Formats: sequence, structure tokens, C-alpha cells
Amino acid sequence: MYEKKSTTSKQQKEIRVGLVGHMFMGVAHSNAYRNAGIWNDLPCAVSMQAVCAKDTEENLSAFAKKFGWQSYEREWKILVSREDIDLISVAVPGNLHKPIVLEALKNGKHVFCEKPLANTLADAKAMYDAAIDTSLAHCCGFSYRFCPAQALAKEMVNQGRIGNVNHVFARYAQDWPSSPDFPMVWRFDKTVAGSGSLGDICAHSIDATRFITGLNFSKVIGQMKTVIKERPLSAGQLKAKQPVSVDDVAQFLCEFDNGATGCFEATRMAPGRKNYNYIEVNGDAGSLFWNFEEQNYLYYYDKKKPVPEQGFSKINATHELHPYGGGPWPQGHGIGYADTFVIEIANFLTAIAKGESFQPNFLDGLECQKVLDAVERSANENRWIDI
Amino acid sequence: MYEKKSTTSKQQKEIRVGLVGHMFMGVAHSNAYRNAGIWNDLPCAVSMQAVCAKDTEENLSAFAKKFGWQSYEREWKILVSREDIDLISVAVPGNLHKPIVLEALKNGKHVFCEKPLANTLADAKAMYDAAIDTSLAHCCGFSYRFCPAQALAKEMVNQGRIGNVNHVFARYAQDWPSSPDFPMVWRFDKTVAGSGSLGDICAHSIDATRFITGLNFSKVIGQMKTVIKERPLSAGQLKAKQPVSVDDVAQFLCEFDNGATGCFEATRMAPGRKNYNYIEVNGDAGSLFWNFEEQNYLYYYDKKKPVPEQGFSKINATHELHPYGGGPWPQGHGIGYADTFVIEIANFLTAIAKGESFQPNFLDGLECQKVLDAVERSANENRWIDI
Amino acid sequence: MYEKKSTTSKQQKEIRVGLVGHMFMGVAHSNAYRNAGIWNDLPCAVSMQAVCAKDTEENLSAFAKKFGWQSYEREWKILVSREDIDLISVAVPGNLHKPIVLEALKNGKHVFCEKPLANTLADAKAMYDAAIDTSLAHCCGFSYRFCPAQALAKEMVNQGRIGNVNHVFARYAQDWPSSPDFPMVWRFDKTVAGSGSLGDICAHSIDATRFITGLNFSKVIGQMKTVIKERPLSAGQLKAKQPVSVDDVAQFLCEFDNGATGCFEATRMAPGRKNYNYIEVNGDAGSLFWNFEEQNYLYYYDKKKPVPEQGFSKINATHELHPYGGGPWPQGHGIGYADTFVIEIANFLTAIAKGESFQPNFLDGLECQKVLDAVERSANENRWIDI
Amino acid sequence: MYEKKSTTSKQQKEIRVGLVGHMFMGVAHSNAYRNAGIWNDLPCAVSMQAVCAKDTEENLSAFAKKFGWQSYEREWKILVSREDIDLISVAVPGNLHKPIVLEALKNGKHVFCEKPLANTLADAKAMYDAAIDTSLAHCCGFSYRFCPAQALAKEMVNQGRIGNVNHVFARYAQDWPSSPDFPMVWRFDKTVAGSGSLGDICAHSIDATRFITGLNFSKVIGQMKTVIKERPLSAGQLKAKQPVSVDDVAQFLCEFDNGATGCFEATRMAPGRKNYNYIEVNGDAGSLFWNFEEQNYLYYYDKKKPVPEQGFSKINATHELHPYGGGPWPQGHGIGYADTFVIEIANFLTAIAKGESFQPNFLDGLECQKVLDAVERSANENRWIDI
Repeated sequence: MYEKKSTTSKQQKEIRVGLVGHMFMGVAHSNAYRNAGIWNDLPCAVSMQAVCAKDTEENLSAFAKKFGWQSYEREWKILVSREDIDLISVAVPGNLHKPIVLEALKNGKHVFCEKPLANTLADAKAMYDAAIDTSLAHCCGFSYRFCPAQALAKEMVNQGRIGNVNHVFARYAQDWPSSPDFPMVWRFDKTVAGSGSLGDICAHSIDATRFITGLNFSKVIGQMKTVIKERPLSAGQLKAKQPVSVDDVAQFLCEFDNGATGCFEATRMAPGRKNYNYIEVNGDAGSLFWNFEEQNYLYYYDKKKPVPEQGFSKINATHELHPYGGGPWPQGHGIGYADTFVIEIANFLTAIAKGESFQPNFLDGLECQKVLDAVERSANENRWIDI
Repeated sequence: MYEKKSTTSKQQKEIRVGLVGHMFMGVAHSNAYRNAGIWNDLPCAVSMQAVCAKDTEENLSAFAKKFGWQSYEREWKILVSREDIDLISVAVPGNLHKPIVLEALKNGKHVFCEKPLANTLADAKAMYDAAIDTSLAHCCGFSYRFCPAQALAKEMVNQGRIGNVNHVFARYAQDWPSSPDFPMVWRFDKTVAGSGSLGDICAHSIDATRFITGLNFSKVIGQMKTVIKERPLSAGQLKAKQPVSVDDVAQFLCEFDNGATGCFEATRMAPGRKNYNYIEVNGDAGSLFWNFEEQNYLYYYDKKKPVPEQGFSKINATHELHPYGGGPWPQGHGIGYADTFVIEIANFLTAIAKGESFQPNFLDGLECQKVLDAVERSANENRWIDI
Repeated sequence: MYEKKSTTSKQQKEIRVGLVGHMFMGVAHSNAYRNAGIWNDLPCAVSMQAVCAKDTEENLSAFAKKFGWQSYEREWKILVSREDIDLISVAVPGNLHKPIVLEALKNGKHVFCEKPLANTLADAKAMYDAAIDTSLAHCCGFSYRFCPAQALAKEMVNQGRIGNVNHVFARYAQDWPSSPDFPMVWRFDKTVAGSGSLGDICAHSIDATRFITGLNFSKVIGQMKTVIKERPLSAGQLKAKQPVSVDDVAQFLCEFDNGATGCFEATRMAPGRKNYNYIEVNGDAGSLFWNFEEQNYLYYYDKKKPVPEQGFSKINATHELHPYGGGPWPQGHGIGYADTFVIEIANFLTAIAKGESFQPNFLDGLECQKVLDAVERSANENRWIDI
Repeated sequence: MYEKKSTTSKQQKEIRVGLVGHMFMGVAHSNAYRNAGIWNDLPCAVSMQAVCAKDTEENLSAFAKKFGWQSYEREWKILVSREDIDLISVAVPGNLHKPIVLEALKNGKHVFCEKPLANTLADAKAMYDAAIDTSLAHCCGFSYRFCPAQALAKEMVNQGRIGNVNHVFARYAQDWPSSPDFPMVWRFDKTVAGSGSLGDICAHSIDATRFITGLNFSKVIGQMKTVIKERPLSAGQLKAKQPVSVDDVAQFLCEFDNGATGCFEATRMAPGRKNYNYIEVNGDAGSLFWNFEEQNYLYYYDKKKPVPEQGFSKINATHELHPYGGGPWPQGHGIGYADTFVIEIANFLTAIAKGESFQPNFLDGLECQKVLDAVERSANENRWIDI
């Protein structure tokens, strides 16, 4: 196998990070801050100052040691006020996004906030307004933009390789809670999570559409359904039940500002689909599709090739000429889920260090929230909603 | 390779057939009547009496000779009144379905009518009412029911292999007219075709859903779009244009009578999709999906298997234990598009000969039409419509 | 869907056919003679004069009626001497190929002979010599050449689309007799079948290589194995066993005349592989692969495309611009196993009618046999054999 | 998404590591030592003491800082004699394996050595002998054993899920140097690399076979080929050429100790294949296959299921019930190439800390080397070689 040159430039600036959250997303962020400099040669140093969560000191200490956090906090208000921190990373449920982010911005911290930006459009708007008033960097964590194959899709659409976009089809299907015995977790509680499959997964499809096509949604008609209406309190207590207050299935039809149509489906009730995050964009000169379940590949159909050779090409998008440059590995060696966060955070840190603009930012978070809000209202009111 | 026993039972009854139409569907029907007895050992003989179309005598004569039709007619009214014909097969555009079928029924002919049953719900109702009053056999040509893999899906749902159905997702995508230079044909003219992708392809998805799941649609919200608004008069005359009066894209969300949700998309504007007729059914105990582009395979996910062995199984549904018994070929040798019509007509002829009931019949055609009608009204009126 | 013009030219010459064999291959031939004129507009008429097999009159009569044979015979010597027959089609086990073919040729009949051409190289040579001395047409039935996607592979190699060929990899895997309870049939008896997976399936891989690449095999090293050494006499009599005298697995490495290497594997012991007839050709400018289990598709990798867009393209090879022109169906509607025989025989009949040369002929059969013979000797003698 | 509990046990023992090599494999090792504790909760602490390579101080310093090595060395003899190091990781070309490993063992260091264990069988034997005499831990770096899906294959074969193994088919295809303009690197120099595709990639197939099936190779017949016989000195100097002294293609047939057959192909000349590391195992009760290009999936065919439901199941082998437990991510989130090294080294460190035996060790390296040696001799001598 050929060798990729591994060089590191002289590092000057240091970015000091504090993380709120230590569950699934907290782990993803921790791993990403720890390893961002391995994917990219960063123009800065990274110091993992502190992690913050509601947990025992013993657990927090162990978590911090495992990932390389130098300290821990148990109150986010303390974390976001620490003077030795430049950047706050928010990896907690949606109901906490706004207070943490507003406080962090007020304290002059750059902010990385998980998606969806907020549980309501009003909250998202407030967060965007707060961020836009500052010179601080902000990121809304639509991590799939950093799958090289999804980024290649955007690049190719930009280059006109599929012509004008006529239609977007996106589907995000999972099955982790498809059994009625799967117990309550915060993701089933609307007061905490805001919504179910809509905000958790469909939000990614909405952002991917905006990212790849550059189109804006102009109107939507949505439908939402809670298939499993109550769940056991815990895996060990199947009889005591609590109501589920969010959707298991969320889907909508839409029109874009250029007149193109769209069809979006999101479900957690699709047995066999583990993380089937699929998007297809049809243009008048070709078509592209991508699915996270084969995350390293982009499929491309080029109508301009000679007819007998036309067919979807399966592109292994991990070459050094592809977006994000393949990292330290030769083409075909493939990246995993965690790597998308590594790339995302490497790019965000780079933007901060260089003082460059970054996307996806809070505007992207807000634009996505407008669509989520419209879909939810549309589903409640059984009518088309303009955006 | 092992050998399948090829036997033919003594044939008694003869069914005498007349066909209206000699284009794409006319060819499919002709081939099917010619070869029905090869797939199945029929309990009857088949006599291909006459084909009828608007064409020159020379062309009609050549067509008849090619497929084995013993004579030809140029007026369908003559064909359907011929006393030496028992069964009329209707393979012409939708605007002609009702007059031909009504006259055929009046004359005591069994009827095979292509889908969609009619261009309007009223016409479909009239045809159904006429048929139900007789003891004649009637078929609405939803040919994909006769792909063994689709029929296996139905069988497995019936056997409870995916449990209760929660959600149906269906997508029918093609690209044949995705270039604006593709010229006018009757399928772009609403007065002839009734609708575009809705009736032509989405109708198959609707029927497949009814067939596989047994569910009824209770309400829909639809959206239709004409992407290419005018087309050249002919391939040679790109400048002279005619307006397109049907939809290129038709999609709808729905709810079923058991509370399950559905998402249906149909488009002729998906470059690279040649005949992507896809349906997926999610149940609480498993999932099934099928795509005509891999027509011999059914994918099945069984939640009751041990967790470490769960995965979609790709079943080559051409075994003699599968629906329709594999015909003369050993498993894995695969059938093509034309064979689905052969199986369909072999089964219809068998039902006629045995005096047994047959599906899909005009009731299935009517039920599909109710959904098509509701989707179209819903798209026009921008609201949910109950069925 | 658009409409393909269906025309039939004025037919003049008539080719009168006699078939020996009415099992698996006999059915494939019967169906193909019956329907050849539907795929192509033939420059001749076809008359299905007689089928011949060792069976009861009742069964033969039923078979003839089913497929349209006008008469039947029970002795092939009578069939091949009938003056009302122009073409003999041989669809019986390999031990009968030579006597039937030689007699047919002697009687001035064109000959279609199933593959492998014979059970021994000497027999194949004798048959080739006999044919070459006449002006009669001869075909060796390598039917997979008539899968449009395999033919497209040849066309693209010819056009230089993969550059110089460096390597061929071919694999033919099945599982029909992979259970020890699968009973004896003639294919397990060396005196009848000649060999097992070698002649039955690996022969197709050898021919496909010659067809697609135009290369000649220069030396081989082979290995053959009988995994299941005895089998029940019949499905009902599992205890009474008979020895298996042919190989279940046959594989070989080779070198071609241009210095390229090859790797060939054939097995009937691969559970889950129904008819996995796979060939891949690697050139210095690209690569192609095809698998009968997805028979309508060819995969093509073009090293000359821009690096970021390189990937295997999945080509649906059923367009009218593809080899064999798609028959009566629009692209994407897909053909099945039986259709490859229809195309094969349509092309053979056309060559006879037009007095044109045809491939694959007995020279192709002989060249394949040389490789089969060398592989078998190599396996027996445990050494490389030059061809 | 559900949350995986992330806990870290109290860590006691510390394992102090020194690494030789900082190219492709050196990066893979560095990343793995850095992150081993994130995949598994390790029973020890890891201290990354020093990296050693022939490079400038500036580059070494940058590399060390990037990955977290606390110091660097430029002479491996110094590294392996450092008293503050417990474990030496060897990630340099094959010609250096023996001297480094022998010295490390002599100095009482545990050893992780990349595959193939050595460039010659004699060297491998010497290394094995040296290791076996100690109580030190040793690993031969067959990293693909640590892809969860490959490990699941082993687990299922062990559990009898495919019955007795009849045949193994393995193919390892790449294309990175398939252009003649790809310049010389050490992997094309036999004195450094030992062999080409044989030792570099086919070695993985050999080990995977031993790992999954537990079978031993009993005899082989091999073939090796150098397709591109000379290469430019560098990417910038296309005219000055150097001879290539290793194989581009290596393939062999074999027999195993239980009588099963095998077919192995390895090539660097397969355009479009980026890291196509494929292995299929056919048993009398089922079949399994895995391909690194879809590394998170294992395909399984179970002959004991009802016939109509038989088909290859595509198992996403990242569930917590699968081998290696899925790490911190929920099923379906997928791992990448680098993660296999993380898992490998986490398991090796765990074995060292617990004083438990570990595989793959130097015996596995030696057994693989015996096959490599036999294949190479067989190819040179054109004959079967017993092992």
C-alpha cells in the first residue's frame, strides 16, 4: 500500500474546549476533540479542559480520564463561565440547548451545538439572534455533512453534474425502538426531546437537502404518528408503562423555491434498518444518491455519457481528491461513524483558528428548524404550510 | 442441473381470445397468450382468434402472423361482437377501456382489462357494476402481482411473518421521458391517458399494497407535478411543441384502516431508474421489501431470529415451492418482464376454465381507482381526502 | 411507457427444425424455436417439425402439443434422417452428442449442439472436422453469450474500454445438489455426462472468457474434487446408494497467450448460489464484471474518468442500443433465463437464413474442449499442462 | 438513539509502548494505542513512550506530538533497549521484522509485529522460536480478525452454523498501483518487502481462512506474476525506471487437512477494487461471506431454514451482542479501517494486562508463512507443494 505523508505544521493558537453531555453524543464529541488533529493537520492546538454532566464524581472522573478531559464539572452554568474555556460543545437533549448556548455566547464562548438546534422555532430563532450579534463561531452539528460521500454529492451538484434539480427523495429509517418492550428514554419525552423521529433523524434529511442542493423549502404537508403509545419504565420493569409523547414516524411532501418537489420519510419502526439515512437528488442531467448504511460510497448517474455506458457509478469517496482528503488512510480503507464527528470538529476548529466562516452554523440550524416547525404544524392542522 | 418434469394434462375446454391493442401492452398480452401453457399446464386450450388495432392491413397481418393470431380486425366493435370469441383482452389507452369493456361484457365475453381500470372513478365504477352483474370472469391487469417475489411477500405477510403492518413505503421511479426532447406520445395527453405517473405507475404501487398487506387506504394527501410542460411533436421535430397535460411526478402520504401510515412516490424524472418499482412493508415482527429492478428477489428481515443473525435475507423466489412454482426452470434461472404476463394470463385462463374466482379483478381495479381519484382531488384541492 | 415499433418483414425461406431431447435443455430449445420470431424480426419462417426423446407416446404427444412441435419421434436416427428437416437441435447428455451430430451432418442438416460440445476432446475434434467439411451451419450452445450484458462486455473490450487485458477471474457456483440426499441423476455419471461441474458450468466460464476477451488459454493447472461420493438412487430411496463419478468442484489457474493470468472456480457445493455465473476482466484501463444472478446488468469501471468520479457503473444492458437491441421491451423491463435461448436461436436462424457465419460454432466448442481436457488431465497428473 | 453506558474501571497496571515505524502502519498503530481505551474499558493504563523512525527530528517531533508519543528515537536498537518500555510495536517493512523482534524479545519486551511475520519462512521460524521460549506476549498483526463481521464468521462456523467446511474461496483485490506510472515504493522491492501481493494481501486471506475455519492447509499449487515490470523512480520522474522484483498477482489452489478445497486470488491490478478483501466459506449446512469493502456486514445462508425463506442474510455485525461488542456506538453506526487496529490493540493490551493468551500470535504468523513459502516455491517450481 502506498504511504500518505503525515506532517504536522507548527501549532500556535490553542483552543480550549468544554463539553456538556457524556452520553451517546458526548462520547462522539469527546472522541472527535481527542482525534481531530489526526485527521487534519490543525492550525491550532486543542486542549480538552472539562466535561460536564449530571453524574457521580466517580463516573465523571472515569469518563474524563478515558477521553482525556482534564477536569469535570457537574453544573453547566459553572462550565460555561470558566475563563479557561474558549469553546463550549453542547451534547445534551434539546430542551437544554437554548439556556446553555445563550449563556455560553454571553460569556464569549464559541459554540458547537448538536442538532436539532432547539426544540422550538422560537428557541432556535433566539439562539441564532444571539449568535449573529457576536463575532463568535457557531456550529449546528449536522455531522453527516462531513461524510466525504455526502460532501461529494454537494460538490458534484455545485459543478452542475446533475443539472437542475427536479426532485429530492430522502428517507431516514431505523429500528432500535421498534419493539414495544424497548423502554422509555428521554428521546420519547416531548418536553425533553422536542419531537421524535422528526427532530432526531428527519432533521438530518432536511439539512442534507439544503446542503447538497442549495434549495430552500417553500411549502410542506406533513404527517406524524406515534406507533407505540406507551413503553416500560425500564428494561427490567416491563409492566409499569409511561406514555410516549413524540412521533415514531414523521413524513412530509414539499415544494422547493425552484419548483422542485420533495418526498421525506422518517421512521424508527423499520425493522432491519439500522441507520438508513438515504438521500437521492434527481436533476435533469443526472442523479445522485447516498445512504449512510454504505457511508463511504456515493452513487452517480450521468445522463451525458454514451447511452450504452450509462449506469449508476458506485464511487468510493475516500480518495485524497475527494472532500476532506481521505484523512491518513489510502482510498478504500473506509471510515466509520465516529470519524464523521472527527472531520466535523477538525473543520470547525480550523475555522475558529483561522477566523473563517463555517457551515453548518446556527443559520443552517434555524433554517432546518423552520421546516421542522412547519411539518409539525402541518401535521397537527392537516394542511399545507408555507415556509 | 436437475430436470423438472414437464407434463401436460389432457386439455378439454378451449378459450378463444380476442385482443384489442398491438403496442407495448398488446405485445405483452400476445406473448402471454402464446406461452401461457408453457409456464403452467393449463386445464384448457387457448385459441388466439384475432387481434384488433388501428393500423394498416399489412402491419396487422404481420403482427398477427408474428404472434400467432389467426385473424385481425380494425374495429373493436366488430371484434367484441364476434361469436367465435370468449375472452376480450384490452390493451389500449385508458380512454377506451370503458366502451370496449362494457360492450364486451354485454356480449357475454370474459374480460382482461389493463390497468388502471379507467381514466375516472365514475368509469371504473360503471365497469365494475357491469361486470359484477354477470357471471363472467374479469381481470384488471396488475401484472406485478405475478412476479413470484411479490407474491411471496403477500404469502409471508399472510402467514404473519412480519406481524402487524405499521407502515408501507412504495416508490416507482423511471426515467424514459426525463429528457425534454423526448417527444409527445399518448401517455402525455390527459384526455387519452387519464393521468401520468399517477395512473401509469403509482397505480401499481397502490395495488401492490392492497395485494401484499390486505389493508385499505382510509385517507390521502397528494401532490402532482408536471416537470416538463411541453414536448416536441415527434423525435424528428424538436421545435414544434405540444403541451403535456399529465403529471410527471405524483406522490402522496396516507393512512390505512388499521392506523398504519404510508408514503408513496412515483416519478418519471429519476435519471438512472429504469423500472424501479419498489415496495417495503414494515411490521412489528419484521420487514419485507421488493424492487422490480431485481424482480426475482424478495428481501426479508425476521425480528424473531437470534439478534446476532438478524439481517435482510435475499430470497431468490423462483423455487418450485415459491408462488407460481418456478415454471419450467430450476431455481435461480430467473424470469423476465414478459414472464409476469405469461403467469398472469395462465392464472386467469385457469380460473376461467375452472370457473374459479380470480384476483386482481374489477373490484381491485375499482379500489385502486378510488385511491387514484382521491390523490388527484387531494392534489388539486390541497387537502386530505377520506376514501 | 414509450412504445417500440413492432414490425415483421415479409418472410420467405422456411427453416424446418427437429429437436432431440425434452428435458431441461429440450424445454429451453422448444421455447426458443417457438418464440425466436418475437425477439427478432427473422428473415425466415420457422417450422417446428418434430421432437424426439425416449419417452412414452403419451408424454411425447403432450410435450409436442405444449410447445408446438408438429410431430414426435422416439429414435433420433429416424429424426435426423427425415427429409422434411433442415436443422437438428441436440439437447441430450454429452455422450450422445457425437453420434447424433455426425449423422445429422452426414444427412445435410444444420446443427445446434448443446455445450460442452462432447465428453472428450477426441469426440469434439471429430465433430468439428465433420462440420468444417460441409457448408452447413453449426452452433455450440454457449447460451450466456446471448445475455445482452455479457455481449456488451465483449463489445466494450473490443472497443478498448478496459485497455489490455491483464487478468480474468471467473466463478460459477451453484447449490442444487449440495445436499447428500439429492439423488442420482445422469449428471453425476461420468459415462453419460463426461464430467461434473467442469463440463456443465466451468465450460461456460471458459467460453465467456474467449468470447469477451478474444484471448487463448496457453497453459492450465487444475484441481477437481468429488465432495459427495455417493448418492441415493432416487428421492424416495435414500438408503440405496450409487457412486458419483464426476467432480463437484473444478478449479484451475491459467495463463493466456498475451501473458495475462486467469483464475477459474466452479462448484455445485456453494449453498445460496443458485446460478452464480460470474466473470470479471481486468485491463490496464478499466475493469468489467458480470454475474448471471443479476443477468441484465454489466458493471464497468473506467480508469479514464476523473478520479473523483471513478466507480463501477451498473449498466442495465437492455436498451435498444445494447447488443440484441432489447427485443420488444423498453429498457429496464428485464429478460429471464429462457430469453437468452430465444436470442441465441433467433441469431442462429438468422445466420442460416442469410448464409452468414455464426458464433459460437463448433470451433468455439472445440477450443473450449481443449481447455476442459487440459484441466482434467492436469488435475489427474498434478501438473501444469500446455494447450 | 439509545445510549450505551460508558464506564471505566479503575486502572492499575500500566503498559508502556514503543513503536518502530511512522508510515501507513505506524499511523494505524499510533491511532490504535491512543484510542484503545475508548473502544474497550481496558484493565490497564497505556503509556505511549516513544516512536522511532528514520526521519528528521522535526518530522519525528511533529509525528510524536500529533499522536501523543512522549518522545522519539531514530535508532530502533535504542528504542528496544529502553528500560521504560514494556511493549514494542513493529510497523516497518518485512526485512526489518526479525532483527527488531529478536532484539526486543531478548530485552524482555512484549511484541506486536505487523504481518507477514517475516520475509522468509526461516526468519519467521526463528522469530517464533525466540518468542515461544519466553513468557512474553506476541501478536502478529492480522488486523482483519478484529473486524466484528469477520469475527462473527468465525463464531458462527465454530457454532456449526454452516456445518462441515467443504470449500473456501478468497479474493483480495486492489488497484492502487495498477497504473504503470505509479512510482517505485519499497513494496515493489523484494529485498525489502519479501513479496508483493502474496505477502501484503494474500497473507490476510490465508490467515482469515485459518481463523474462521480452523482448518490447516495441506498442499498448494501457486502462480505469481509481475504485470508491470518496471516503474518510475518517483511520481515526478516518469522516465527513469527501476525494475519491480515482486509479484502483482499471486494466486493458488489448495487442499485442507479435512479434504476441503480452496481457491485464493490476490491482485493489485484490479481496477475499481480499492480494498476488496473477500472470503467465502461453503459448508454442508450453509455458507458465509465477508468483504472488507462492506466491512460492517456478514452474509449468511442457512440451509436449515424453510426453503421458501432461504437467502443470504446481510447482518450488520455491530450490535453489542456481536464480537467486540460494538464499542461505544449503537448498532448500524459503523466502524472504519482504523477501528480494526483499535480493537486489535485493545485486545492485545488486555491479554498482556491479564496475562492471558492471545491470538493471532507468532504461531499464527508462522503458519501463514508456511503457506506463503509453499505458494512461492510452488510458483517457482511449477508443481504442487505439501505443507
